[in-house]
Amino acid sequence: MDASTVILAYSGGLDTSVILRWLIDKGHDVVAYVADVGQNDDFGLIKEKALACGATKVHVADLKTPFITEYVFPALAANAKYEGQYLLGTAVARPIIAKTHVDIALAEGATHLCHGATGKGNDQARFELAYMTLMPQATILSPWKDREWLSQFKGRKDMIAYAKQCDIPIPVSLEKPFSMDENLLHTSYEAGVLEDPSRPYDPSMLKKGSHFLSAPDEPDYVTITFSGGVPVRVENTKTGEAHESPYELFSYLNTLGETHGIGIVDMVENRLMGMKSRGVYVTPGGTILYNAHRDIESITLDKQVQYYKEWMAIEIGRLIYNGLWFSPEFDFLMQSVRHSQQYVNGTVDLLLYKGNATVLSRASDASLYDAAVASMDEDGGYDQTDAKGFIRLYGLRLKAGYRP
Amino acid sequence: MDASTVILAYSGGLDTSVILRWLIDKGHDVVAYVADVGQNDDFGLIKEKALACGATKVHVADLKTPFITEYVFPALAANAKYEGQYLLGTAVARPIIAKTHVDIALAEGATHLCHGATGKGNDQARFELAYMTLMPQATILSPWKDREWLSQFKGRKDMIAYAKQCDIPIPVSLEKPFSMDENLLHTSYEAGVLEDPSRPYDPSMLKKGSHFLSAPDEPDYVTITFSGGVPVRVENTKTGEAHESPYELFSYLNTLGETHGIGIVDMVENRLMGMKSRGVYVTPGGTILYNAHRDIESITLDKQVQYYKEWMAIEIGRLIYNGLWFSPEFDFLMQSVRHSQQYVNGTVDLLLYKGNATVLSRASDASLYDAAVASMDEDGGYDQTDAKGFIRLYGLRLKAGYRP
Amino acid sequence: MDASTVILAYSGGLDTSVILRWLIDKGHDVVAYVADVGQNDDFGLIKEKALACGATKVHVADLKTPFITEYVFPALAANAKYEGQYLLGTAVARPIIAKTHVDIALAEGATHLCHGATGKGNDQARFELAYMTLMPQATILSPWKDREWLSQFKGRKDMIAYAKQCDIPIPVSLEKPFSMDENLLHTSYEAGVLEDPSRPYDPSMLKKGSHFLSAPDEPDYVTITFSGGVPVRVENTKTGEAHESPYELFSYLNTLGETHGIGIVDMVENRLMGMKSRGVYVTPGGTILYNAHRDIESITLDKQVQYYKEWMAIEIGRLIYNGLWFSPEFDFLMQSVRHSQQYVNGTVDLLLYKGNATVLSRASDASLYDAAVASMDEDGGYDQTDAKGFIRLYGLRLKAGYRP
Amino acid sequence: MDASTVILAYSGGLDTSVILRWLIDKGHDVVAYVADVGQNDDFGLIKEKALACGATKVHVADLKTPFITEYVFPALAANAKYEGQYLLGTAVARPIIAKTHVDIALAEGATHLCHGATGKGNDQARFELAYMTLMPQATILSPWKDREWLSQFKGRKDMIAYAKQCDIPIPVSLEKPFSMDENLLHTSYEAGVLEDPSRPYDPSMLKKGSHFLSAPDEPDYVTITFSGGVPVRVENTKTGEAHESPYELFSYLNTLGETHGIGIVDMVENRLMGMKSRGVYVTPGGTILYNAHRDIESITLDKQVQYYKEWMAIEIGRLIYNGLWFSPEFDFLMQSVRHSQQYVNGTVDLLLYKGNATVLSRASDASLYDAAVASMDEDGGYDQTDAKGFIRLYGLRLKAGYRP
Repeated sequence: MDASTVILAYSGGLDTSVILRWLIDKGHDVVAYVADVGQNDDFGLIKEKALACGATKVHVADLKTPFITEYVFPALAANAKYEGQYLLGTAVARPIIAKTHVDIALAEGATHLCHGATGKGNDQARFELAYMTLMPQATILSPWKDREWLSQFKGRKDMIAYAKQCDIPIPVSLEKPFSMDENLLHTSYEAGVLEDPSRPYDPSMLKKGSHFLSAPDEPDYVTITFSGGVPVRVENTKTGEAHESPYELFSYLNTLGETHGIGIVDMVENRLMGMKSRGVYVTPGGTILYNAHRDIESITLDKQVQYYKEWMAIEIGRLIYNGLWFSPEFDFLMQSVRHSQQYVNGTVDLLLYKGNATVLSRASDASLYDAAVASMDEDGGYDQTDAKGFIRLYGLRLKAGYRP
Repeated sequence: MDASTVILAYSGGLDTSVILRWLIDKGHDVVAYVADVGQNDDFGLIKEKALACGATKVHVADLKTPFITEYVFPALAANAKYEGQYLLGTAVARPIIAKTHVDIALAEGATHLCHGATGKGNDQARFELAYMTLMPQATILSPWKDREWLSQFKGRKDMIAYAKQCDIPIPVSLEKPFSMDENLLHTSYEAGVLEDPSRPYDPSMLKKGSHFLSAPDEPDYVTITFSGGVPVRVENTKTGEAHESPYELFSYLNTLGETHGIGIVDMVENRLMGMKSRGVYVTPGGTILYNAHRDIESITLDKQVQYYKEWMAIEIGRLIYNGLWFSPEFDFLMQSVRHSQQYVNGTVDLLLYKGNATVLSRASDASLYDAAVASMDEDGGYDQTDAKGFIRLYGLRLKAGYRP
Repeated sequence: MDASTVILAYSGGLDTSVILRWLIDKGHDVVAYVADVGQNDDFGLIKEKALACGATKVHVADLKTPFITEYVFPALAANAKYEGQYLLGTAVARPIIAKTHVDIALAEGATHLCHGATGKGNDQARFELAYMTLMPQATILSPWKDREWLSQFKGRKDMIAYAKQCDIPIPVSLEKPFSMDENLLHTSYEAGVLEDPSRPYDPSMLKKGSHFLSAPDEPDYVTITFSGGVPVRVENTKTGEAHESPYELFSYLNTLGETHGIGIVDMVENRLMGMKSRGVYVTPGGTILYNAHRDIESITLDKQVQYYKEWMAIEIGRLIYNGLWFSPEFDFLMQSVRHSQQYVNGTVDLLLYKGNATVLSRASDASLYDAAVASMDEDGGYDQTDAKGFIRLYGLRLKAGYRP
Repeated sequence: MDASTVILAYSGGLDTSVILRWLIDKGHDVVAYVADVGQNDDFGLIKEKALACGATKVHVADLKTPFITEYVFPALAANAKYEGQYLLGTAVARPIIAKTHVDIALAEGATHLCHGATGKGNDQARFELAYMTLMPQATILSPWKDREWLSQFKGRKDMIAYAKQCDIPIPVSLEKPFSMDENLLHTSYEAGVLEDPSRPYDPSMLKKGSHFLSAPDEPDYVTITFSGGVPVRVENTKTGEAHESPYELFSYLNTLGETHGIGIVDMVENRLMGMKSRGVYVTPGGTILYNAHRDIESITLDKQVQYYKEWMAIEIGRLIYNGLWFSPEFDFLMQSVRHSQQYVNGTVDLLLYKGNATVLSRASDASLYDAAVASMDEDGGYDQTDAKGFIRLYGLRLKAGYRP
């Protein structure tokens, strides 16, 4: 390893603290980069800690609003999910973290990027693929895939010993029997005791109040307004509280969703590298918006556009999961998605109650719903005898072709 | 219309009663056929009524068990849904009703099949496409697409007048401001007041106790055992109550699901004919099974098989919705689905509580989940440095190809 | 049928001539509309004939250049084919013919549109779906689906008799034992003797010189230059002849293609209405361009974009075939296609010889082909040991998951 | 590297000869395994050479017939192609070579498998993924991804020097300015001078007589008979020569195809590892069969089955290309494909002439082609007025939904 300035994605935790010092030991200058994507952290403290570990400089980047507007909302516009359930909370955050990482490296004139993601997980790919795309000339340092590092740090014990020896403060969260990732979109829980999928997770593991078993008996009712596929207003119709800025409205939906235990998923998923992995994801505001957005699309998008979008939602979900946000194929598919959102305008009313974020009604000036045509009571310009010919020809090939 | 023996799919309601008499007036012999797919009806009464209306014979076919085993379970194996939400309760029942209709016609030596579905809905296609496939030589009578009928019966009023004149008993359900369809898999509500999608439905419309707002405060816990993709045992782990026969276990899941307000969907969907339509569907047991089945697949199916199945679930859902259960393409896709289910064995534990049917844990002898490989604490034979080469080559094309 | 001004799509053939007079007999004013999409016709003569049949006015619209630039080139950009072989020559022409039809109706203040396509073929749908989309308020007259017309004209004989009686000149082409459709993109042959798919067509049926069995022994060599996915220059490298305008270059490729017997397809396809149908299509210039465009994409598009485009080519081909050029879903998919073409620049050299339009070489400033990385002789920055990790992880799931 | 018995896939060429000796130098016992998949080689000579290089034993496996029946024909049944053009000649052969490799290792009680494919190409993945699936416990030796080997053999020169020093005979084919792979299905040409895609290949590179520019002026005519999707008879209708066994009929089609210059593709493809690569493929018999099989399907398969199969052909083509023949997802998709072939019976007549393998006619007892329904001259039970209702409802959503 040559001695260079390294921009290190720094979280304040044990791993990246040890990495920081280890890089210095290797002769590098280390600039710490801390991304604020809405996790509950004391960034002042993290900054101090980075400096205490020997960083020459610390960048704390507030990415909360662009994370919502440029990453969460587009993923939402695509109705992107992974394997039918996962709303991609971590996967959607990685691209903006990586892109800012690259921006800082370019600003600092640095060529080395380092992250602390392990060699088994998806995040390493999400970070490194973004680096490769946005800064192909970068040198990527990934200690957890480095033989020297791996032989020095065989387990947590070795890191703690190293940390003690270097006066690196050891975080309390070490005690947790699982690992967490938190941002505005979600909190995820994995590893440790969760690695046995036949063992239920302990609801007390979730942040206070957020399991639906302990949610309040009083529901909330919200109206969400969409314009161009993007939520532009949220109103609690019981209290009258309303928000319009992306960050405010999203945070408010998070608060409501957490209160009512909305958006908890316990699933076994397939990682990019192919192995199965169990995770628990809590996506409160994102789940409410997913339900609302899909519903407003149901009256504003054409049937066949919905069909193609349903297929694209699977593909885009996989691309995001696999670290391909910055990729030609993501751009390619998103062209169609973006175009489709121009008429996705209107309001959706939802009931929030003990794990449920249920749509009650929807309305739009751009609605394609034609009550008269749909009606079973009036014809609405629809001639029922047309259906005779329709069905006869729709089924024409079946008369000959059915040979089970 | 020539005078022949007509086999009429008869429900006991106003429409098919009027049709029955009308067919007789046209000179036909009418054999009524009543399909019992688990709707809450007094089949003795319906039979009497058919005879009172002039039917020469009445067949009441108990289809409950084959409906579950040959239609509901295969759709479940495919994880079939329409437009992301609808579990196809009506659509899955139509093929068995139509197939039995044809069987009766063949047994009776009749060539005329008649149904009472309207010219705007999906059911007409589901019935008639099945007739065309299974009995291409049949003559299909569909009064609601018949000009003569339409000019005689311009609205409900005309039918009531006709019924009165012919001493046809008028059902009380006429008063309902919407229409319902009920079978073992679901109850659906549509038309009438529901035709305004911006107006929430009245929860009291649902059968007693089934909305999650009024569900009990005590959860239930069930263990569902799958073998070959099919549920073979359900046990309430609180009470010890257990069921193993398809009909019993499915009915028991319905009871539990109804109790806890599980499986209610309020959506705007696109009908086969293209118009948008609002429906409320309540699928209690089916929703529990859908969640459980998808989850047991998550540990027993290969990642890429899951991917292809996710795509097929969309397609198969559309085929079922569009009335193409009996079609070459349904058979074609189901070959792969069926094959995939051989290792879908194991148990899933779920929590049932106020609208939620949440998976708590899953286990299988055929599990592909490898805790050691997935683990963040041990290597499990996985060399993290392999990921270096993996990511470098996975992203090789991105270095050159990204030109947003 | 009420008496109104009808805009009739008029070809000069027997059918539309009889329809013209028949509409007048019904009391309509008829404005004839003749679309010039490059078929080999004497438009002066057709105009005269329309007037002789009683048309009050005749519009001859020269659509040749917009047909190429706004319809053929976009379909080419999508690599659209139907059922793997058919380059959609008729299907791509219908939308521009229908759109111009509507434009004329709007300009004339007419509300009635009439076409002469039969009730069995695809063209009726292509015309009428376009009318419905672009002029939903229009009244569509389609004699071949009109009971009165059908009972009056049971066969060709009746039309000839009617024509004679009304002094409508009868075209010589009546003698042909099949029917043809011709435009700049292709000539199609179907019906009549071709309706037996087990009987080869007679090569002499094709326009002179165009079967490859009788093509010259001397090949031609052309260089085609693409910019933004669109051909902008064609040069015959043997003769130096070159063309740059869309119409000129396309016509020149047609001439070369016809000379060398390129682009003949004899296939059985599935019509929109479901029945199978045999057609012979000759698409000389279109075939050369299809081959060249796909090839230039192979070095200028990213691998995964190519993959998604391959899937879209099937879907877009179906949409065009089924008459859905003007549809929300066509617009939706074409957004991505259009975006992808921005770097589809460069030149392709082809050999034209006895039915073959074979790519010899390709080059582009926007090429993603990296000879050094691809090379088996040098490393080009590629570390072969990376492939070790790549394959190990790519196949990780296979070690556990293979249970045939 | 521990000393063990290694089963080496041996071709007789320079690379695997040097590898053989190098493995012995490392202390291994080497058993050479030579797969005969129809390449034009003197297997006696190869065997002698392996022994001369120090192999303790040599297995020559004649895989020609199972290659055709168990690999080529199933790929053909799927109409599998990669990126629209490549008939997968090399990719289809790799699985049977790898499977036999494993069979020999198991029979010999060996645990080490070695192949000579490079670290840049697809074949390494095809071999190793098959090993991992079929023999997960095997140790895979892949010198071209081995740092020690790579530092010892930096180029061809080093290998030649090593070969001379060890008395390994140096093949003449070294002189070729490109590399070839040959089997019954195809001959491929890549690397060397072909690495510049803007430079046409020299037709004299192809085996004698096989370019269509120098093909005979006399066409051939063949009739191919399919049963269950598999060719069971080929007859030259000019000479009467006929073959029925898989190997004989396939070889005969190769002879005819080579004579007429059929099946030459020059393309730039995307390798599994993502880089673009130029290859020239000659697939004479395979191309004739592909055309014939697709055509017989066109009259024997249902329209929608054809549609799904078209999508699967892309996916299956990618799986085969990427080395996933032995994979759960390949098995999954092939279930449907296999089922679909039961009615793919009948005969296809083709004209073979100067690069063209053109279908002239097709017939089948299982044909779904209904001349009466398709006919433009008779109704065949088809009521044209049905199309009125069909189109009205098919386009219903378009009236409202088109907002470009």
